[in-house]
Amino acid sequence: MSSAYSLAAIGHIKTPFQEKFGIPRQSGLVDVAGVIEMLPGFDKPVMFEGLDAFSHIWVSFVFHQCLEQGWKERVRPPRLGGNQAMGVFATRSPFRPNHLGLSVVRLDRIETRAGRVRLHVLGADLLDGTPVVDIKPYLPYVDKVSDATGGFAPHPPETQLQVVFSERAEEQLLKLMPEQQLRTLIEQLVALDPRPAYRKGAEEDRVYGMRLAGCNVRWRVADAQAIVLGIEADDPAQ
Amino acid sequence: MSSAYSLAAIGHIKTPFQEKFGIPRQSGLVDVAGVIEMLPGFDKPVMFEGLDAFSHIWVSFVFHQCLEQGWKERVRPPRLGGNQAMGVFATRSPFRPNHLGLSVVRLDRIETRAGRVRLHVLGADLLDGTPVVDIKPYLPYVDKVSDATGGFAPHPPETQLQVVFSERAEEQLLKLMPEQQLRTLIEQLVALDPRPAYRKGAEEDRVYGMRLAGCNVRWRVADAQAIVLGIEADDPAQ
Repeated sequence: MSSAYSLAAIGHIKTPFQEKFGIPRQSGLVDVAGVIEMLPGFDKPVMFEGLDAFSHIWVSFVFHQCLEQGWKERVRPPRLGGNQAMGVFATRSPFRPNHLGLSVVRLDRIETRAGRVRLHVLGADLLDGTPVVDIKPYLPYVDKVSDATGGFAPHPPETQLQVVFSERAEEQLLKLMPEQQLRTLIEQLVALDPRPAYRKGAEEDRVYGMRLAGCNVRWRVADAQAIVLGIEADDPAQ
Repeated sequence: MSSAYSLAAIGHIKTPFQEKFGIPRQSGLVDVAGVIEMLPGFDKPVMFEGLDAFSHIWVSFVFHQCLEQGWKERVRPPRLGGNQAMGVFATRSPFRPNHLGLSVVRLDRIETRAGRVRLHVLGADLLDGTPVVDIKPYLPYVDKVSDATGGFAPHPPETQLQVVFSERAEEQLLKLMPEQQLRTLIEQLVALDPRPAYRKGAEEDRVYGMRLAGCNVRWRVADAQAIVLGIEADDPAQ
């Protein structure tokens, strides 16, 4: 009865997320820009004819950084504070059989560069370099299930933290990217409070860091306020 | 850059659809009952804990009957009358790289039989025996994209045919399944008019047939009306 199939990457997505910590836990929560670079053999403009008429696409991908860790029968969803375990198939956990991921993202535009297709998307919750295994149009009349009810996660997570930037962080941002996109992205991501649930609520001096868009972002949390302390470029020559 | 992954079936779905012809072209169009039988290793009740709180699930599957035929850069979606070609990634065609399918279905109930899980679902558009490679909860706050627009298929297909049953068909139905489910299913499926687009509109004497739930269903179309001629059990001993 058991059967196995082969799954080939057809592209890779470029996102600012250089590590798992800090990535929003579902797509669409933060309007981050990403680019799906199709691989040779799957990158001809003719294969995407008609896709530009759709506002959103499904991206099927492999949680490639979780392959070695395997999967678990039960997981503790962050949405339940990390205290309560659920069956793996009742969650979107990456630690699942076949390690398949599924995200709906906004299709911003289709670019052809030197005859090769790149899809510019908004709202991806994927690690930089994630292998993409399928692209499908989002069909509202099928996929927008009007009477669906949502189990343990019926609503989007509430934004939990107010985010302020230190003077030093503001100066660093001005030098790195005066156009504000990086500032807005950091603000939105830190506001979602990616800290492990067991640390939340505790007053603490701990400094958190995430690698984002070639930078190391550091912040501290106190009294439901996050203070962004610094944003250093990975490569000082940048 | 190119990489390959292994994909294992974690279950198989049982549906009344014994051949491709006649299957609705998206999920949810017809309320047909199906059962996902999980395979050993993926069938423990603990793996599904919490899933019963969700009304709908995503089923990721492999279009296993299309593997040998490979895939095409452009396909002709039935929704466009089969006349206009679109890029494969702008469609949900089964003739796609990796042959991955994705359907949202209603989760009717989770059954445990001899310690093994079976998921009873409604609205599947899958061939009987299709290998399932992932089950995920449908998260309305993420998956129900309020402002999504739908390209060439913004609305459900209109029901195109009025369906009547011949006396002979009514008699056969009474013997096969007096509870009406089979009659209702046949009525809904034939009404969707699965004929190839190039045959539609033409007056014709041709008899169409589909294998469904262990029967051979035959019908003819004239003047936007379908007449179900007969419903014979595959195995006369049944």
